[in-house]
Amino acid sequence: MSGMLGTSTAHVDLKSQVDRELRDIFARHTATAAAYGTDFAHLWALAENHAVGGKLVRPLLMMETIDALAQSHEVTAGTRDESLRIAAAIEALHYAFLLHDDVIDGDTMRRGGPNLIGELAASARVAADGRRRRHYARSAGILAGDLLLSTTHQVFARADLTGATRTRLLDLLEHTILETTAGELVDVGLADAVITPDLPSVLAMTLHKTASYTFQLPLRAAAILAGASPATEEAMSAAGAHLGLAYQLQDDLLSTFGDSAAHGKDAFSDLREGKQTAIICFARLTSAWPAIEDSFGDASLSHDRAVEMRDLLRSCGAERFVQDLVDEQLSAFSQVLATGSENGTLPCGVRSVLLDLLGRVDGRSS
Amino acid sequence: MSGMLGTSTAHVDLKSQVDRELRDIFARHTATAAAYGTDFAHLWALAENHAVGGKLVRPLLMMETIDALAQSHEVTAGTRDESLRIAAAIEALHYAFLLHDDVIDGDTMRRGGPNLIGELAASARVAADGRRRRHYARSAGILAGDLLLSTTHQVFARADLTGATRTRLLDLLEHTILETTAGELVDVGLADAVITPDLPSVLAMTLHKTASYTFQLPLRAAAILAGASPATEEAMSAAGAHLGLAYQLQDDLLSTFGDSAAHGKDAFSDLREGKQTAIICFARLTSAWPAIEDSFGDASLSHDRAVEMRDLLRSCGAERFVQDLVDEQLSAFSQVLATGSENGTLPCGVRSVLLDLLGRVDGRSS
Repeated sequence: MSGMLGTSTAHVDLKSQVDRELRDIFARHTATAAAYGTDFAHLWALAENHAVGGKLVRPLLMMETIDALAQSHEVTAGTRDESLRIAAAIEALHYAFLLHDDVIDGDTMRRGGPNLIGELAASARVAADGRRRRHYARSAGILAGDLLLSTTHQVFARADLTGATRTRLLDLLEHTILETTAGELVDVGLADAVITPDLPSVLAMTLHKTASYTFQLPLRAAAILAGASPATEEAMSAAGAHLGLAYQLQDDLLSTFGDSAAHGKDAFSDLREGKQTAIICFARLTSAWPAIEDSFGDASLSHDRAVEMRDLLRSCGAERFVQDLVDEQLSAFSQVLATGSENGTLPCGVRSVLLDLLGRVDGRSS
Repeated sequence: MSGMLGTSTAHVDLKSQVDRELRDIFARHTATAAAYGTDFAHLWALAENHAVGGKLVRPLLMMETIDALAQSHEVTAGTRDESLRIAAAIEALHYAFLLHDDVIDGDTMRRGGPNLIGELAASARVAADGRRRRHYARSAGILAGDLLLSTTHQVFARADLTGATRTRLLDLLEHTILETTAGELVDVGLADAVITPDLPSVLAMTLHKTASYTFQLPLRAAAILAGASPATEEAMSAAGAHLGLAYQLQDDLLSTFGDSAAHGKDAFSDLREGKQTAIICFARLTSAWPAIEDSFGDASLSHDRAVEMRDLLRSCGAERFVQDLVDEQLSAFSQVLATGSENGTLPCGVRSVLLDLLGRVDGRSS
């Protein structure tokens, strides 16, 4: 999700505002955490350090959208303050999902450094053996995720807004968590070969796991907070879904066919992990599959064999097929914007935010 | 927690009311779950089956307390309906904690049958290998716990009560989750030998992990919903803490010194697991410890050696010490009731509910 948002002065201001709210959310429990002993206080402090280190993509998208909607809708100073809190809570939710994702995937690293679990396993103050330290750290990851999931709901539930607005936000949060969890379950099931990989399952998983909380949640929350009409919220949600799906499919393409020096991930890690992407689902239906299948998911895959597989995935039409899916999603996105412009459901400022977002998805190389 | 509540007709009625609310909470998402595919629908159905199978100890305690408070406080029919929903949400929270506990402990059984994780690992519809099925099932346990944690907050956040009452309930929920999570972290840290076992840590863990959400949460929620004074809520909270701590310490005593035929658990499982109880913390400070230490936490401990250890724990004074702790807590509990009777903070009906609870903790053999 790197580089998805710009670095203008307004953007930097917004980032520091969200950052402050996020720190405030953690500060609410710092004293309480200390009262429960040094180990719990340490976990809470670690969670704060890792949570505030992100790019704040989702809260910034939400706040930029609110500010765009404020050109045509009445957004009071009070509502904007509440929006900042909701935006920070959305980041807390994101970090809760990351923590549980890391536990599920057994990851101890993120962005080139140790994640909370890795750091905790290394820093356990009593010298237990490695297996027990890792178990403790993973368990702490589950518990910290629970705390942040709880915190997110607390912020939504206490928002100083009209009852109707708060209920719409609670509906959105509930829907998003159900959808993201459903997507995550299918993702795990595919990785564990418990769920049969087919294109509809993989596309639905992609939409639910990523587009829902990364794109649709911030956009819809902004619409609700600005008091926009349900039609506007719906149009923004549709735009977010198309863009989110395009983004994730593009990510899959880059990971297999892109320049690893540019995107910074391990080249061919998806092939080594045996990740069930739309690319693989298409390839499985072609005559090239038998020549790919044997090495798919081989953790010790050589570079030469990976290059061979990539070329097969290209020649069998899988790259083209997924690129077409991306294009379809981007064209559907443009159609939503055009319709929203014609019927007035998407104000000009909102279209600018969405087009800005599009610019960062379309044609990116990293 | 078996046999903690009675089986009178009123009790059976209350149980079916809470049961219905709990099923309603699940029913809200059944259609949505189905829309996210058969695997997610299957997980949701499994979660419902396991969640509704419990004894509903916490919601029943809460409802019995509400009904007792209704003798001296005005509890409208509407408030009582909302209370039933909150009570059911407290059971959902309990099940969320159980699920994450089972993931942390690697348990696949509960009450003699497979738990959700065990059932899911056995029933995975595609024939993946055992390791992957277990990973999928554990991951699903994390996600189902997240959904139920989220559901609990949604019920609290939407309760049709005055803003002030809802905020007090949200405060209580937040406090309870922080405290329970802190207790669970220390419990895991003690088991993994990452936290040094000493009596204050073990007692705090016991209070936070068990008394807080099992005793204090239902009692305080009842006080808040009935519009009782903060002094009443405080007295009930204190009573719940003393009783909860006594209950758990009693449980530790029974597990090591009790009649395993009566309590139904594996005899000496605490000694085999190396569970850091108050009994062990005391024994560690005595000259008997070197003769206990070697076999403590030995999974293959023989019955004869376990009997020897039990006798050592008895002769070194650990049993007596913990029995004294239980008695102290029970006497503090009685003191809270006496004071509450004198100053009018604990109405007669509430004292009856608390004494009924005491009767099931004190002197039990299972």
